[in-house]
Amino acid sequence: MTPSVSSMVEGPRYIRVHPGDNVAIVVNAGGLPEGTVFPSGLRLHQRVPQGHKVALTDISEGEPVIRYGQIIGYATRPLAAGSWVDVTAVRMPEPPALDDLPLATAVPEPPPPLEGYTFEGYRGSDGRVGTRNLLGIVTSVQCVTGVLEHAVQRIRQELLPKYPNVDDVVALTHAYGCGVAIDAPDAAIPIRTIANLASHPNFGGEILGVGLGCEKLLPDRVTPDAGRNVTSLQDHRGFSAMIDEILRMAEERLARLDQRRRVTCPASGLVVGLQCGGSDAFSGVTANPAVGYAADLLVRAGATVLFSEVTEVRDAVHLLTPRAANEEVGRKLIAEMKWYDAYLRRGGADRSANPSPGNKRGGLVNVVEKSLGSVAKSGTTAIVDVLGPGERATKHGLIFAATPASDFVCGTLQLAAGMNVHVFTTGRGTPYGLAMAPVVKVSTRTALAEQWPDLIDVDAGTIATGERTIEEVGWEIFRFILDVASGKKRTWAERWGIQNDLCLFNPAPLT
Amino acid sequence: MTPSVSSMVEGPRYIRVHPGDNVAIVVNAGGLPEGTVFPSGLRLHQRVPQGHKVALTDISEGEPVIRYGQIIGYATRPLAAGSWVDVTAVRMPEPPALDDLPLATAVPEPPPPLEGYTFEGYRGSDGRVGTRNLLGIVTSVQCVTGVLEHAVQRIRQELLPKYPNVDDVVALTHAYGCGVAIDAPDAAIPIRTIANLASHPNFGGEILGVGLGCEKLLPDRVTPDAGRNVTSLQDHRGFSAMIDEILRMAEERLARLDQRRRVTCPASGLVVGLQCGGSDAFSGVTANPAVGYAADLLVRAGATVLFSEVTEVRDAVHLLTPRAANEEVGRKLIAEMKWYDAYLRRGGADRSANPSPGNKRGGLVNVVEKSLGSVAKSGTTAIVDVLGPGERATKHGLIFAATPASDFVCGTLQLAAGMNVHVFTTGRGTPYGLAMAPVVKVSTRTALAEQWPDLIDVDAGTIATGERTIEEVGWEIFRFILDVASGKKRTWAERWGIQNDLCLFNPAPLT
Repeated sequence: MTPSVSSMVEGPRYIRVHPGDNVAIVVNAGGLPEGTVFPSGLRLHQRVPQGHKVALTDISEGEPVIRYGQIIGYATRPLAAGSWVDVTAVRMPEPPALDDLPLATAVPEPPPPLEGYTFEGYRGSDGRVGTRNLLGIVTSVQCVTGVLEHAVQRIRQELLPKYPNVDDVVALTHAYGCGVAIDAPDAAIPIRTIANLASHPNFGGEILGVGLGCEKLLPDRVTPDAGRNVTSLQDHRGFSAMIDEILRMAEERLARLDQRRRVTCPASGLVVGLQCGGSDAFSGVTANPAVGYAADLLVRAGATVLFSEVTEVRDAVHLLTPRAANEEVGRKLIAEMKWYDAYLRRGGADRSANPSPGNKRGGLVNVVEKSLGSVAKSGTTAIVDVLGPGERATKHGLIFAATPASDFVCGTLQLAAGMNVHVFTTGRGTPYGLAMAPVVKVSTRTALAEQWPDLIDVDAGTIATGERTIEEVGWEIFRFILDVASGKKRTWAERWGIQNDLCLFNPAPLT
Repeated sequence: MTPSVSSMVEGPRYIRVHPGDNVAIVVNAGGLPEGTVFPSGLRLHQRVPQGHKVALTDISEGEPVIRYGQIIGYATRPLAAGSWVDVTAVRMPEPPALDDLPLATAVPEPPPPLEGYTFEGYRGSDGRVGTRNLLGIVTSVQCVTGVLEHAVQRIRQELLPKYPNVDDVVALTHAYGCGVAIDAPDAAIPIRTIANLASHPNFGGEILGVGLGCEKLLPDRVTPDAGRNVTSLQDHRGFSAMIDEILRMAEERLARLDQRRRVTCPASGLVVGLQCGGSDAFSGVTANPAVGYAADLLVRAGATVLFSEVTEVRDAVHLLTPRAANEEVGRKLIAEMKWYDAYLRRGGADRSANPSPGNKRGGLVNVVEKSLGSVAKSGTTAIVDVLGPGERATKHGLIFAATPASDFVCGTLQLAAGMNVHVFTTGRGTPYGLAMAPVVKVSTRTALAEQWPDLIDVDAGTIATGERTIEEVGWEIFRFILDVASGKKRTWAERWGIQNDLCLFNPAPLT
């Protein structure tokens, strides 16, 4: 559908992000017609859709197209000032070579600490803090899912009402566990992901494990204290006995979880995962910079901030390696990029598979432009660590958690890293939610916030209209994260119970 | 747990499958102790667990170990008659080379037709027959799953009771659709799988499609008559409007589905998918040969029979290529084996990843032994076609549908091929079920059938005890399939509502 015209934009308006840019994006909802004259005197040669780019100067064939002060590609034909710079007008540059990148050459100074910010959380025995109080049930293999879903329905109906301090029951079901090459080099990724999901702080250390009994993935590889916590279906005399035992073990854990109480915790207990999905050309101008500002506030407050999505960072990696806190972190970042390059190559793919058709309709011409907008989420602080897919975060500060850009796979891997609040920016719009942690959705355009008033939590589109600043929206996001973490506010996805599936990243073969 | 001792076996008993075998498997539940003397005079040198192998003659180091009349490996040490031939005693042979296999050199004669067998089915406009009457809702991307699950719960509670002839509503949710290398060579597999699932005969041509609006996998690639059948969430004004529209479109389809009636159809309308999961050494002696006998009956009655699981056929492929109906079919079979060899190799894996720990505890020493038992399911008729993963069956007769051996992935791909009844043999025991088609579970051992009386539909373990013949159990399975297809009988998995997830096979990279 055509987005509604925002009432906040009066005349024709474009946004140039960096003084060196020779393109800008059109702000006005619905786009602008041929002949439109901007306050700068620039005149449109043709209609330009909202979020799409207009040439600010004449650009000759082969000359760089510059946005964010960076080359996003080269003109495939002469582009007069006022032309629509669409996907056919820009040839993608080569990705940055990975062997000569500057490492830790421009490490940002530690930002001034931000004191006094707290939230109400569930403190675990390992010091990590939960933002919700959930009964988690981890599985070692898909085979048990049908039985477990039956049990979960009964737990919700019969047991959960008796334990009002427990928010929900979450089954960690997945397509892994058997019929997989469990000794292949990349099998470590799905296995550590499941294990780290099972020890998520929102489960309060009271995990229940359900296995089958003959699966390749032994339950003790993914369940803490498996001897006490796992039941295997093959050990029971029939279906009814399986259900009875799962309910009995669930109730033991619900009773203990119900005793937990929120306590005041410093903001350093937050592990905030950042992601963008359904991106458009505004993502890098409004929502992502505002989230980047919030990321800086979080880091100043001592929290852990995760940014991810290898294919959306790959083309901007030369801007990140100088920010690595030390050379070792820089080398880890490069190693993750190299692994992913090889992974795509062996599958006959490359980075041109990103962006999606919706991204392109939203104005993004290629993955270089998308990347430059995407890394804006990371703010300005030093990158203190790099995690492989499915690894758990152990440091405070800004961390790159290597994941695919796929929203649902990235979300799953950020949960495995320990994320207790998720911040998700979207331009085209996605109703995404997770069962294990609250998802705060930030729109890049006001038109989307107006269209989805019961799904979008924060509207960053007001930055494009000039109504609010990046700093103002950044503070709003920061404060909203604290309120959501405390359970004082619930996100729209939580209110509706929108829960996307866990989707593992398994680059190893099925057998 | 230790399986209960079956009351049917009186003295010590072993089964030799083929007169040329130099090993046999111990039948008695709980195994047999050192010193046991069999009626043949053979004396056990050590304890042998149930289902495990005993040497019938002295086997020198390096000599072949023979079962099913085939070499399953070579002795790693001298094995005296009466020794336990465990997993450490057998070295795996090289897999059959794929370049010089005999093609269609021993094509079985067409078996005598079996006339007069029918079932009550839902005949579709394309001639295919449904065995259940389901509202199917296909998705183009995981992003919509959370919203759709909310809608499905409301459809079940508010709409389904008004349409009593409709059995259930099934959401085809999956981890595909965006963040994927959609132009990679192997992307065709998940895409055609989803498309073929959406046109399954159990949905009666009344599919509903739910998309997001910016995903890479365009909904019209997976939804028949997409213009009429798809709604995209980005087109709606908020969550409530999305739910309202899904419910409205669902009710239109429920009203039409409710008018459908079962009619008498020849057995040739059946598409029966065969699979084994949680296999043990009895699988190839009891359940799989009985299913193979039923497969022959089905083929004689004109039905389509699918067998699958590449890694469990790979080591017996030299026994299958001669059975190919013609050289082209033989070459297609070899091409699927080669594709899979390369797929495993590029992921750093090989066939040794199969069998599972449970298989080994059940007595299978390696994938060669497992394969020989697995292909027994295919019966004795000619192989008339070979399908790539996710392709739809179009012929009648015995078809090899290439899939991973992973139970849930194989089941998903057999559904995509058009399977309307699933037959699943299990030795260790799995409670597996599917939402889209009934799953008949056949146990290899009576002890399992006794342990799981509310999960196992047919006990083939009586073949091992000598109580019943392969033919008798084969006929029982054949008749049970017809009754289940007709809706006259419901499988245990259906009665409990056990539904495992659809699990796509996506060998292409995520981006």
